[in-house]
Amino acid sequence: MRGHDWSWLHPVIICVIIAAVAYAMFNFGNVKRLVVGKPMRTRDLRESRNLLVWWMALPVLSADLYSSVAYGPEAGITELTGLGENAKWLILPITAMTVLLLMILITSYIMGVIAYPNGGGAYAISKDNFQRAWVPLLAASALMVDYVLTVAVSVASGVQNLASSYPVLQGHETSLSLLCVLIILLVNLRGISESSKVFAYPTYVFMACMLLMIGVGFWNELHHGFVQPHTPPFGVVPQGLTLMLLLKAFSSACSALTGVETISNAVPIFREGKNGAIKAYVALGLVTGVTLLGFAYHLYVKGISVNPNNTMLSQLAESYFGHGFLYQFIMWSTLVVLILAANSTFTGFPQVAALLAMDGYLPRALRLRGDRLGYSNGMIVLAALASLLVEIFHAQTNNLIPLYAIGVFVAFTVAQLGLIKRWIRVKGHWWRLKAGINAFGALITALVSVIFAVTKFTSGAWIVLVVIPLMIYLAMKVHRHYQDVADELRIDLKVDRPQQHRIVSVVLVSGIHRVVLDTISFAMSSTPNVFALYIGFDDESIEKMEEKWQAWGNPCRLVTVKSEYRSLLQPLSKFIRRLETYEGGKPDHIQLFIAQFVPKKWWHNLLHNQTSLLIRAWMLRHKDVVVTTVPYHLKK
Amino acid sequence: MRGHDWSWLHPVIICVIIAAVAYAMFNFGNVKRLVVGKPMRTRDLRESRNLLVWWMALPVLSADLYSSVAYGPEAGITELTGLGENAKWLILPITAMTVLLLMILITSYIMGVIAYPNGGGAYAISKDNFQRAWVPLLAASALMVDYVLTVAVSVASGVQNLASSYPVLQGHETSLSLLCVLIILLVNLRGISESSKVFAYPTYVFMACMLLMIGVGFWNELHHGFVQPHTPPFGVVPQGLTLMLLLKAFSSACSALTGVETISNAVPIFREGKNGAIKAYVALGLVTGVTLLGFAYHLYVKGISVNPNNTMLSQLAESYFGHGFLYQFIMWSTLVVLILAANSTFTGFPQVAALLAMDGYLPRALRLRGDRLGYSNGMIVLAALASLLVEIFHAQTNNLIPLYAIGVFVAFTVAQLGLIKRWIRVKGHWWRLKAGINAFGALITALVSVIFAVTKFTSGAWIVLVVIPLMIYLAMKVHRHYQDVADELRIDLKVDRPQQHRIVSVVLVSGIHRVVLDTISFAMSSTPNVFALYIGFDDESIEKMEEKWQAWGNPCRLVTVKSEYRSLLQPLSKFIRRLETYEGGKPDHIQLFIAQFVPKKWWHNLLHNQTSLLIRAWMLRHKDVVVTTVPYHLKK
Repeated sequence: MRGHDWSWLHPVIICVIIAAVAYAMFNFGNVKRLVVGKPMRTRDLRESRNLLVWWMALPVLSADLYSSVAYGPEAGITELTGLGENAKWLILPITAMTVLLLMILITSYIMGVIAYPNGGGAYAISKDNFQRAWVPLLAASALMVDYVLTVAVSVASGVQNLASSYPVLQGHETSLSLLCVLIILLVNLRGISESSKVFAYPTYVFMACMLLMIGVGFWNELHHGFVQPHTPPFGVVPQGLTLMLLLKAFSSACSALTGVETISNAVPIFREGKNGAIKAYVALGLVTGVTLLGFAYHLYVKGISVNPNNTMLSQLAESYFGHGFLYQFIMWSTLVVLILAANSTFTGFPQVAALLAMDGYLPRALRLRGDRLGYSNGMIVLAALASLLVEIFHAQTNNLIPLYAIGVFVAFTVAQLGLIKRWIRVKGHWWRLKAGINAFGALITALVSVIFAVTKFTSGAWIVLVVIPLMIYLAMKVHRHYQDVADELRIDLKVDRPQQHRIVSVVLVSGIHRVVLDTISFAMSSTPNVFALYIGFDDESIEKMEEKWQAWGNPCRLVTVKSEYRSLLQPLSKFIRRLETYEGGKPDHIQLFIAQFVPKKWWHNLLHNQTSLLIRAWMLRHKDVVVTTVPYHLKK
Repeated sequence: MRGHDWSWLHPVIICVIIAAVAYAMFNFGNVKRLVVGKPMRTRDLRESRNLLVWWMALPVLSADLYSSVAYGPEAGITELTGLGENAKWLILPITAMTVLLLMILITSYIMGVIAYPNGGGAYAISKDNFQRAWVPLLAASALMVDYVLTVAVSVASGVQNLASSYPVLQGHETSLSLLCVLIILLVNLRGISESSKVFAYPTYVFMACMLLMIGVGFWNELHHGFVQPHTPPFGVVPQGLTLMLLLKAFSSACSALTGVETISNAVPIFREGKNGAIKAYVALGLVTGVTLLGFAYHLYVKGISVNPNNTMLSQLAESYFGHGFLYQFIMWSTLVVLILAANSTFTGFPQVAALLAMDGYLPRALRLRGDRLGYSNGMIVLAALASLLVEIFHAQTNNLIPLYAIGVFVAFTVAQLGLIKRWIRVKGHWWRLKAGINAFGALITALVSVIFAVTKFTSGAWIVLVVIPLMIYLAMKVHRHYQDVADELRIDLKVDRPQQHRIVSVVLVSGIHRVVLDTISFAMSSTPNVFALYIGFDDESIEKMEEKWQAWGNPCRLVTVKSEYRSLLQPLSKFIRRLETYEGGKPDHIQLFIAQFVPKKWWHNLLHNQTSLLIRAWMLRHKDVVVTTVPYHLKK
C-alpha cells in the first residue's frame, strides 16, 4: 500500500469535532459546564466592569495595533523582493510613511474620543451622523471583515514565527493555526472580560522585548558601524521600480496600522475617562512609531532578506542573540501578543454584530448573550469565518495581507466623515480646527483605501470589494424582513382576542400496539373529532387492520388508505385536503398526531424509521396543520 | 498569491452536492421526478420480471465475474514485480491455479443451484441449514463487504484503464471514480431491472474483444514465434522467491473470481429454470478460463511489465493494435463492462440488506422499496461506502485488492457447509457425490480464505477481519433491540383500550402578537387547563408583559418567570417539574404548545431563533411531555 495523503480528512475531522462538542454540550450539561463554565446571571454584567488606570488600559487595548509590528514591515518589503539588494533601503521611507499615517490616524481618533466620550466605534459614529442606512452599514461591514482578517492574520503570523524557531512545525502551520483559533474561541466562550488586567503584562513584555532589541541594535551599530558588511546600498533607484510597486509595498506595510480603533471603542473602561484615552493614544502612537522605525532601520542595516521559512523578526533577533534564551523569549512573547491581538477581536466583532442585530440588520440570534454573558453566537461566527480563511489561504500571512486593512481604512474614512458632520452640527470650542483635522484624516484614509484597492485588486482585495457591498445588501434585506414580520404580527389588544376554534384531529396509526394506544388515548382526551388514519401498502394488511380495529372495540373512526406508491406523505396530504374541504364546514385547524419513539441509546434512533420527522417537517412547511408529537420512551 | 491546493474541498463539495440533491428531492417533487423518475406501483413489481433464455441471461449475470479478467492477472503479477524479469513466467502457473479454483467453485455452485432452484444466496442457504444466527450473518456480512469492494475495485479499475489511454485524466482518478459511483447510483435509483437485456450486449462485446485479442495474439505468435525478443526466461526460480510471496500473488489473482455467486442468486430469471443456470455456469466457466489463460500467456510472451500509469490490458492491446480504433474500442468496452460489474452489485447488496432487515438484523429502513421499487436506501448505503473506500484508497486498484475477495471466499465456504448439511438431511439421488463435491469445495475455499487472510493481513485484509465480526456483533444487537421493542409494545386487544386522560397544557409566549393569539386560541380550544408561560430576562419586561396581559383581558392564567441565566430551557423544565408534582393530582399528560414561524424563503429561517426546535428536541428526549407545534406561515 502506498503512503496515503490524509489531508482531505482535515475539514472532516474539524466538522466532526465541532459536531461532537455541540452534541455533548446540548445533551450533557456537565460537558458544557466543563468547557464553558458555570452560567452567570445577567446582573453580573454590571459588576464585572472594572475601571483601569490609563497605563493599565493601554497595553490591554493595544495588543491588536502593537502586535502588527511583527508582520507589517515584512509585508511591505516582501512586495519589493523581486528588485534585489538595491531595493532593500526602501523599507525606510515606506515605514516612515506608515508612521506618518499612524500619527494622522491617532490625531483623528483623538477627535473621535472627544466627540464620543462614551465610546463609539465607526458604526455608532456614522449611525449618529448619517440618515441613510447604508453608510453605517458600510462602516460596520468593513470593520467586521477586518476583524475576521485580524484573527486569521495574527494567528497565522504567530504560528509562522513559532515555526521559524522550531522548523519541526513547518508544514503544519494550517493545523496549528486552526487549533489556536479553536482555543481562543473556547477561552472567549468562557468569557474573559476585555478589561482583564492579565492582558496587560504580555503586551508590556513584548513591548519591552522589541525596545530591548532596538536598543541592542543601536549598541551593535555603535560598535560595528552603522554601515555593516551586509548593509545594502542606500538611495539607489533599483531597476524595475514603478510607482505601482512602491504603492503596493506601502499598502502592505499599512497592515501594521490595524487596531487603532480599539481604544476609542473602549473609552468607558478608563478610570480617567476621555483624558485617559487621549493619554493612551499619544503614548501608544509614540511607542509604535519608535518601534516601527527602529525595527525597519535595523532590518536595513543587517540587510535581512525575506525568507518564507524564517520571519524577519526571527532573523533579526537571531543576528543579535543567536538561538539562545533571549531569542526564544522574544519569539514566544511575539506569539503570545499576536494571539492576544486575535483574542481582542473576539470582543470587538461580536459587539458590532450585536449592535447590528439590535438594529435589525443581522439575525437576532447574534443579540443573545451566552452563559458567560459574552455574545457567544458572534464569537462562533467569527471563529468559523477566520478558520475558513486560514484553511483557504493555508495560514500564509502573505496571502492574507492583500485582503487586510482595506476594511479598516474604509471604516476610518466613514467615521471621520461622520465626525466632520457632527462638528458642523454641534459646533463648540475650536470646532473648525477639529473638523479640519478630521477632514484631513478622511482625505488621507480615503486616498489610502483607493491605493489599497487598486494595487491589491488582483491579488485578493477584490474579494473584500465584493464581500462588503454584498454584506450591506444582505443587511438591508434582513432589515426589510424584520419590518415586514413586525407589521404582520402587530395586533390590537382590544379587538384581537383568543377565540374558540373547531379542531379536527388525525392520528397516524401503524398497527395496534402500546404506542398507538397511548397516542389514541391522548388524542381522544384532547379533542372530540378524532380520525385514526391507517396507510397500508397492500390489501391484506388493510383488511387485517380493519378486523383488529373492530376487535379493539372501534375506539374512534378508522380511515384506511391503500398507498400503491408506498409513500405515507402523499395519501396523508390527500386526506388532509379532503378534511380542509369537509362537507360539514372547514375546520379552523387540523391537528396531526404523530407518535415518536424515544430510545434509551442514541444509536437506536437508526433502527426506527424517522419518517415521523420528515412528515412533521413537510406538513409544517407546506400545510396549515398543527403537529403534535407524542413521545414514547422505550424502556430498553 | 501562491497556487492553492483545493483538494481539501473535495469531500466538502461532494457533501454539498448530496445535501443539495436530497434537499431538492424532499422539497420539490419535480426534481425527484426528474432524477429518479415517476413512482411505480407495488403491483408493477410482478409485471417487471421477464424471463430470459440462458444465453441472454449469461452475459447479464456475468459482468461481475468476467470483467475481473481486466485486473485479476495483473493484481497477481504485481506482487512479484520486485523479483524482476525472472519472475514474470510465474503468471502462468498462478493463473492456471486460479482457473482450477474457478472450476471447483463453479461445480460447487451448480450443486447449490440443484439444491435451491428458486435462487438462494449464501445467506439464504446458510439460514436454511444452520440453527445458530451467527452463521448466516457471517455469510451475509462477508458478502456485503465484498459487494462494496466490487463497486470500488471495478470502478477504480475502469477509470484506471481509461486514464491509461487518455493520460490527461491521470491524477483525477479519484474524482472520476466518485462521479461514476454517483452516476451508477442515480441510474439504479431510477430502477433498472437486473434482468434487462440491454446489459447483455456490452458483456458480449467485451467477451468478443478479449477473445479477438487472444486470437490475434496466437496469430502474432505463429508469425513472430512463441518466444519473442521481449519474452522473459521460463521456469527459472527467481532470487528472493518465497512461498509466502507466491501465495500472496495467488491470493491477489483470485480477485478475478468474485461474482461467481450471481447466477445462483438469480436462477428464477432463467426461462429454462435450473437447467438454464447450469448451462450458463458451464459456458461462463469455459469462456472465463480460456480468457484468463490466454491473456496471461500473451502477457508472458510479450514480457509486459507492471506500470501504474498503463494497465497491462492496455499495454497488450497497444502491442497488437497500436493506438488505433481497435485499441480505443477495447479500452472503452473494458470500462463499460467494469461499470456494469459495479452496477450489478446495486441489485445484490440491497437485496441481502433487505433480507437481513426483514429478519430484524439491520435497520428497518433498508426494507423499504423506493419510488422505483428498488431498495433505494440499500443502494444509497452501498454508494456511500464504496465512495468512502474510493476516497480513502485514492481509487488505486492495487490498494483495494488486499481487502477484496476474502469476503467472497468466506461466504463460499459457509454456503458449501450449509449445502453439505442439506444433502445429509435431505438425501436424494447421488447425495453422497453432491455432498462430496461441496465438501471438497468448502475445503478449498476455506484454505484459500486462510491463505488470503495470512498473506494479505498487514496490507489491508485485517480491516475486513475486523469489520466482519463487528458487523455480526452489531446485527445481533439490532436483533435484540427489535425483539425487546416488540415485547414492550404488545398489548391485549381485549384489556388495553384507550382511556380518557387528564391533560395540562403550557403555552410558551414571547409577548402578545398575532402568533401568540393564534397559539393561545388553539390551545384553549383543545384543552381546558391552559397556562401561558412567559420567561423574561429582566424585571421590566416581566412587568410590562403582566400589564399587557391584563389589558388583553386575561384569556388564561399567565405565569411569569425571571430567567437570570437567560436560558429558556431551565425555567421551562423547572415549571414542568412543578406541574408533574401538582397539588391537585399529577396530570396524565403535560402538553407543551410551541409556535413556529414558517417563512416563505428558506434563508429567512436564519433570522428567527430556532430555539423552538431545540426546546422540542430536548423536551421529547428528556421529559414525558407531548409537544404541539403550531405553525405560523409568514405572508412575506
